[in-house]
Amino acid sequence: MSVKIKVGILTVSDSCSKGEAEDLSGPLLKQLVLDDSSLDGEVMVTECVPDTIEDIRRVLVSWSDGGQADIILTTGGTGFAARDVTPEATISVLDKQAPGLVTSMLVGSLSVTPLAALSRPAAGIRGRTVIVNLPGSKKAVKECFGFIQPALRHAVDLLHDRKRPVVATHA
Amino acid sequence: MSVKIKVGILTVSDSCSKGEAEDLSGPLLKQLVLDDSSLDGEVMVTECVPDTIEDIRRVLVSWSDGGQADIILTTGGTGFAARDVTPEATISVLDKQAPGLVTSMLVGSLSVTPLAALSRPAAGIRGRTVIVNLPGSKKAVKECFGFIQPALRHAVDLLHDRKRPVVATHA
Amino acid sequence: MSVKIKVGILTVSDSCSKGEAEDLSGPLLKQLVLDDSSLDGEVMVTECVPDTIEDIRRVLVSWSDGGQADIILTTGGTGFAARDVTPEATISVLDKQAPGLVTSMLVGSLSVTPLAALSRPAAGIRGRTVIVNLPGSKKAVKECFGFIQPALRHAVDLLHDRKRPVVATHA
Ligand code: NA
Repeated sequence: MSVKIKVGILTVSDSCSKGEAEDLSGPLLKQLVLDDSSLDGEVMVTECVPDTIEDIRRVLVSWSDGGQADIILTTGGTGFAARDVTPEATISVLDKQAPGLVTSMLVGSLSVTPLAALSRPAAGIRGRTVIVNLPGSKKAVKECFGFIQPALRHAVDLLHDRKRPVVATHA
Repeated sequence: MSVKIKVGILTVSDSCSKGEAEDLSGPLLKQLVLDDSSLDGEVMVTECVPDTIEDIRRVLVSWSDGGQADIILTTGGTGFAARDVTPEATISVLDKQAPGLVTSMLVGSLSVTPLAALSRPAAGIRGRTVIVNLPGSKKAVKECFGFIQPALRHAVDLLHDRKRPVVATHA
Repeated sequence: MSVKIKVGILTVSDSCSKGEAEDLSGPLLKQLVLDDSSLDGEVMVTECVPDTIEDIRRVLVSWSDGGQADIILTTGGTGFAARDVTPEATISVLDKQAPGLVTSMLVGSLSVTPLAALSRPAAGIRGRTVIVNLPGSKKAVKECFGFIQPALRHAVDLLHDRKRPVVATHA
């Protein structure tokens, strides 16, 4: 029996954090995690913060360094609006970037719509925690989670040196 | 009726800037912009500079900070020649990078030729201006403009908080 | 008759460098280089180092600045294990990054398996030397070499200003 993967879900949205809009993408992401039998994860922490670099950084650092999450999935703040700063906040706390996760989401999304060219996700590793930026809309969150989910469990296993033969083929 | 998008076109080429070669890609890019009804753009400024980081930076900063351009398209200087420094100059002035625009051009170009692996474009945002590096040849300029053009108008609208429902799906 | 391309092959592996495992990917890469008639390369230097930034940097700098290699291919250390630092070491010595080479490998690998999302290759230019990170397993090395090999000879020719018309279309 495998170890449960601890997941944190961070919604980045000015309007949701002020209670002016309902957070739909965060709860959807939680459901996607719980429904994913290959990941075998549990959602340990969730939070909603405004679109500021400081707020985003604070949660990412707290959850990763505090051991609350093996994987942090963010939703929102990755587009072209002036307030969108999730990727910049994320990159500033990463030890290592993961262009494979980014390319996986972008290539998948571009096959759905050319407007995915406006997505600016970052992804990578801080300590033993994988951090991935997902888009803000429900439709795009669901699509992007689908593109990366086959790799998420393996990412955490590798970070903890629980090697799996099948993964070793692309390490 | 929508607001006209202000476009700047910067040709980066030692030989064109010295008058030793004719700039073919800049004028082609201007025609592509004018022919694109979904973008609804007007070319406000054009210039040709040599392949130096200082010259490229100077124009990018002047056009974006001076409000001359909502979108700056560069052509040339993105390859493997020793003098090619357009991406490095561009990244140095960007506030935010846009990997979706880069991946869109690269994936599209790689489907045409494996030699697109030698393309090194950068793209992103400075203030309220979108900056995208396109290749130097006429053929590649035309292809790459085609890959990104469905997203350009939306990029500018988002930067100015003129939100469109359809775009929100991938923000 | 064209000039022979000088290739260096760097295996990054704690266990191989300690003699606890046999280096299979380095010799495979050497064979792939020698079998590639379009590249027309000769393997001038090979080495195996442990997974530390210092060791990797030392070899990359020595081979590129010392003129031993026009192309350096690394194998290993690009995944999600805590010790994997080949991309970070590589980026720290590059003058220019080459996202086209990275995207070429990632897109190709993702078409084989979604686990390629865990690959974190870097690629670029230091002086007149092209440096590319390949994965660590024999299967993935062979696949990734196949994706980039059509472009390698042209990359070196461009860096030395030996321009070829066919290449100019994507510079
Ligand atoms: Na990298």
